[in-house]
Amino acid sequence: MVKAIDEIRNELGGSDDAVSTDDEDLKAHGFSEWSSVNVDVLPVAVAYPRSTDQVSTIARICHKYKVPVIPYSGGSSLEGHTAAPFGGVSVDFAFMDRVLEVREADMDVTVQPGITWSDLNLELEKRGTGYFFPIDPAPSAKIGGMVATNCSGTNAVRYGTMRDWVINMTVVLADGSIIKTRRRPRKCSAGYNLNGLLVGSEGTLGIVTEATLKLAAIPEHFSVAVVPFPSLKGAVSAAAAVIRKGVPVAALELMDEEQMRIVNEGGATRPRVWKETSTLFFKFSGTEGTVLDNIETVKALVKPFGPDAFEFARDKKEQESLWSARKESLYSLLALRKEGQILWNTDVAVPLGALARVIEESKSEAKSLGLSVCVKGHVGDGNFHENITYSPRDPIEAANTEKAVKNMVKRALEAEGTCTGEHGIGYGKKKALSAEVGDGTLLVMKMLKKTLDPHWILNPGKIFDP
Amino acid sequence: MVKAIDEIRNELGGSDDAVSTDDEDLKAHGFSEWSSVNVDVLPVAVAYPRSTDQVSTIARICHKYKVPVIPYSGGSSLEGHTAAPFGGVSVDFAFMDRVLEVREADMDVTVQPGITWSDLNLELEKRGTGYFFPIDPAPSAKIGGMVATNCSGTNAVRYGTMRDWVINMTVVLADGSIIKTRRRPRKCSAGYNLNGLLVGSEGTLGIVTEATLKLAAIPEHFSVAVVPFPSLKGAVSAAAAVIRKGVPVAALELMDEEQMRIVNEGGATRPRVWKETSTLFFKFSGTEGTVLDNIETVKALVKPFGPDAFEFARDKKEQESLWSARKESLYSLLALRKEGQILWNTDVAVPLGALARVIEESKSEAKSLGLSVCVKGHVGDGNFHENITYSPRDPIEAANTEKAVKNMVKRALEAEGTCTGEHGIGYGKKKALSAEVGDGTLLVMKMLKKTLDPHWILNPGKIFDP
Repeated sequence: MVKAIDEIRNELGGSDDAVSTDDEDLKAHGFSEWSSVNVDVLPVAVAYPRSTDQVSTIARICHKYKVPVIPYSGGSSLEGHTAAPFGGVSVDFAFMDRVLEVREADMDVTVQPGITWSDLNLELEKRGTGYFFPIDPAPSAKIGGMVATNCSGTNAVRYGTMRDWVINMTVVLADGSIIKTRRRPRKCSAGYNLNGLLVGSEGTLGIVTEATLKLAAIPEHFSVAVVPFPSLKGAVSAAAAVIRKGVPVAALELMDEEQMRIVNEGGATRPRVWKETSTLFFKFSGTEGTVLDNIETVKALVKPFGPDAFEFARDKKEQESLWSARKESLYSLLALRKEGQILWNTDVAVPLGALARVIEESKSEAKSLGLSVCVKGHVGDGNFHENITYSPRDPIEAANTEKAVKNMVKRALEAEGTCTGEHGIGYGKKKALSAEVGDGTLLVMKMLKKTLDPHWILNPGKIFDP
Repeated sequence: MVKAIDEIRNELGGSDDAVSTDDEDLKAHGFSEWSSVNVDVLPVAVAYPRSTDQVSTIARICHKYKVPVIPYSGGSSLEGHTAAPFGGVSVDFAFMDRVLEVREADMDVTVQPGITWSDLNLELEKRGTGYFFPIDPAPSAKIGGMVATNCSGTNAVRYGTMRDWVINMTVVLADGSIIKTRRRPRKCSAGYNLNGLLVGSEGTLGIVTEATLKLAAIPEHFSVAVVPFPSLKGAVSAAAAVIRKGVPVAALELMDEEQMRIVNEGGATRPRVWKETSTLFFKFSGTEGTVLDNIETVKALVKPFGPDAFEFARDKKEQESLWSARKESLYSLLALRKEGQILWNTDVAVPLGALARVIEESKSEAKSLGLSVCVKGHVGDGNFHENITYSPRDPIEAANTEKAVKNMVKRALEAEGTCTGEHGIGYGKKKALSAEVGDGTLLVMKMLKKTLDPHWILNPGKIFDP
């Protein structure tokens, strides 16, 4: 490893800007406060490439010395994706964070992996394009990691997931060779869909150094409605009714009573105080006319489920603060932890018909184990998150947390769902993946891995083991 | 091959129902009137499996004897996908054409590969589900082939392509082993996206024997508008303006003056006679309110491009006949051929900003070569079709046709587009794919093929050669 690092440093120009072995830096890349899982090992170096060619150099050298390469962008992964269980080189895209080209006539943009989706949207706004990039995970998430996990977020119910927005990618393969997955058509049936395979492969098949993304038109008009329900089941059933009718809502989020309490406590929407019960958040967008029409449709559809109210954000500021309260609920949870507590935040997704039951049973088990739990969900997609705040030093609480999470995953799989709808497998859910897809399918995945990365150097220890 | 066929016949029950070597049957499977390309070789047998296990048996035996396996469903491929350039066994899914399960609460359906999308929709209607399957290529297309080519159709501008609607698949691999790509969540980030890799792989990586598909809610209200323009450029620019504003049209089709003449000549919409000029067809869907709103938005957006009119289909019947005139324009073209003529029908897709130019240049070249050409397009996706009717026995006309097609593809690639937006590579576009993606990317595709099909028995001669 030392030899490899020296060689990388030499080829990248010899400075500490290019390759760092600083302890703090290693820790910042190998350990994550966000993540449900962490390992004891750290990377031995952090490389900061400035071009596709430099990434290729890193891969070529690591391939020669069989040294692990761990791509790193926003670092907000929740399942230990950026951990370095076998040491190796963390490749941080901090200096590859530019918008390379915006093509307004084609509605697309080419970016480097180190830019956050929020900065990309600021740039598109600054340029007055009238477009935005609609995939919205945690605000600190960067394009590289978003590709890696096939992330989504609150907009997915309308706009789909990361996979749907990638037109092409420049990818450095395990041996350092550079490919481009395809040209720039928005629709394509030419040859194998390498975009589809690489998006969601968590840095284990190749390292993305550029991505061309589709853009969407910014809707003219928005509205946000907050609809509290007497029960979680009522809220989820109402959401399902809206989806089954195909109403083109812009977002449809569930927050349970505990999450609502956190929104109130966080104070982002003060002086307004929300009812602390299971609540649906609807976002509507389009022309003013279609927004009003969608609202009427949704009001009628949710009525049979007995909502306590149907309240609107009063202005743009309240819309934004409400939505940011949702987007930043994870930060709020982290901020509210007591000394020594950590957060286990994980997601599953199930067929729509099973959603209410799986959420209810999972939450009720966690509560009966005495855990501090809250649930929020992209319920339009059958996807929800369980957040448990616990003390890892309390062996009973730690064991109970693990039990609650495991059983939630088990319940999701029994309902024919998945152990992860948007966060990925990472280091934390390898056993769950194996249970989910079975030996034959896992073998096919491993064969693909072995073909593209024969020495298993790309983000080893993630998704599955050899 | 004879040994393999005997063994398959024995294991499948010994009757001619299961394996046919009838000359007419071989010809019906090896030659296609639809296709732009045909080969001189025919399959040596046609197998008619009735279950996934029987498909597995066929693959296992063919793997042992290294005999080609060519999956066959609707047979409406345009690029020679079902041809048997190396002989082998055509596997026809005629008896695997059932809807296995409809899950209304989950908005999904599990089907066998031999059902057409139109029959699936009839079945969903008969059951009163309120749902439909929105991917609409040629009406005779079946799910197996639709998966194989990642097809789309007129609804793609609203609903996306086949890839977006597949939840999971049961797949028989080259050696006969059976896998299921995943469970049944609508959204998933668990492990490699085998759906994404297999959809569009044209039967070269595995044989799909079951597919679970998402369903969409049938909109309440529809409207169809017909908007003729003085020029092709005006029509395409107007379409681009609508897309760039993000108006959620249900479909947006272009037909040129020649296609409009064929609609009139076909007589499906009589007594109405349409203006024979470049025309946009808009389909709107949603609630009555949103449809009206979308129509007003579109009217305002296309106005600067000087449309000759903005006419609506007068009733549901006229809506349907207009749309079916579009859907069946290929059948009309086939019917209008003179003795000895055949049809070259092929597609490309380009970034939106280049669409008008690539269509205009391609059409004008074909015309200057004296060819009988018409263009229609899924212009909202940057995707269009050029149809040339010609006599293969006239060597000059044949050479000119080939030249026009090749140059259209070249022009699409130069505009950073693709040689196929929805029909696939098949036998006919292998050189174009190689030019499109380049050696490095093609090598990755070949490595994946070699991994999953080491003897290269699955639909050999398609997409690329070893």
